[in-house]
Amino acid sequence: MEFRKRPGGRSARVRDAVRQATLAELVERGYTGLTVDNVAERSGVHKTTVYRRWGSVEGLISDALELARDEPWPIPDTGSVESDLRGIVQLVRTGFDDPELGPVSSAFVAAAMQDPAAARALHDFFAARHEQSAEVVRRAIERGELPDVVDPNEVIRVAVAPVYYRLFVAHEPVSEDDADRAADAALAAARAGVL
Amino acid sequence: MEFRKRPGGRSARVRDAVRQATLAELVERGYTGLTVDNVAERSGVHKTTVYRRWGSVEGLISDALELARDEPWPIPDTGSVESDLRGIVQLVRTGFDDPELGPVSSAFVAAAMQDPAAARALHDFFAARHEQSAEVVRRAIERGELPDVVDPNEVIRVAVAPVYYRLFVAHEPVSEDDADRAADAALAAARAGVL
Repeated sequence: MEFRKRPGGRSARVRDAVRQATLAELVERGYTGLTVDNVAERSGVHKTTVYRRWGSVEGLISDALELARDEPWPIPDTGSVESDLRGIVQLVRTGFDDPELGPVSSAFVAAAMQDPAAARALHDFFAARHEQSAEVVRRAIERGELPDVVDPNEVIRVAVAPVYYRLFVAHEPVSEDDADRAADAALAAARAGVL
Repeated sequence: MEFRKRPGGRSARVRDAVRQATLAELVERGYTGLTVDNVAERSGVHKTTVYRRWGSVEGLISDALELARDEPWPIPDTGSVESDLRGIVQLVRTGFDDPELGPVSSAFVAAAMQDPAAARALHDFFAARHEQSAEVVRRAIERGELPDVVDPNEVIRVAVAPVYYRLFVAHEPVSEDDADRAADAALAAARAGVL
């Protein structure tokens, strides 16, 4: 897996190397198998540097999440709110299906359940994702497809929530139809003036 | 916290004692602090018995979940599907707010993210909860409040999903209004024929 590299000086390169190593270790071993020592060894950055700058597994995860927050997230723009919303929910579903991205994303969710710092980082990550994704709802309001009382971020939350619920709470599979239905349900609720 | 006691012979009493101890330990220490030794000590059941019958922390959690599945779940019956659905989603919300039930429920969700046996047990638990809760939707269909093409279990999933999403994924607070809105959104989608 190649995560986006960033420009910058030595400090940025070190940060990037440690982050790539954190993500790669998460893919291989999951959250419970993540150690600062393994990340240091894999990144080629000296162990004492990693301990000094990141402190712990939770610090590594928070930092990786902070960088992930700024990753490009390909918001669809199909001209119709129905297919835009379906597109967003399918992005979430296929992301978790991806053999490399999936374990990393799951590890972030697991880490946040056990550590307050990771929970804050994940909160910020999702706040940014909601804000970006809500653009499809704002455009729909501008086009007159949805009433302007609608809360765009809440439409996104309700649209994606059933996918996460199936994956991480009820432990049920998520089909393409399940994802479309979740998007359609949020849209129906928005049209009814509930969201 | 008093969890429901069950009738039965010595074996059932031992199972109950171990289960009570598991839940009490989860309240005090969470999933990451749960050990077979602590559960054995707290339950007064001999350590070798606990290891032989439950095997591991995951075995203890799966068994506690299996018993929780049969706990009474006070499905509302107000005569209106809107208030019944709101009632169910509020039950979920207040359950996680409860200082004793909340940590146990969160520990189950965390355990299932890290262990396949706990995930299967949680899956079965939620399948039973969906089935029980769907009664309010089936009654609404009988009363003619909802079209009979509606999938009752899916209405329940969509109604509760935003509460879990806020709690365990986005790490956002869940207000009473948030919970009502989630119920209303599922109902609007069901009325629109989407679910």
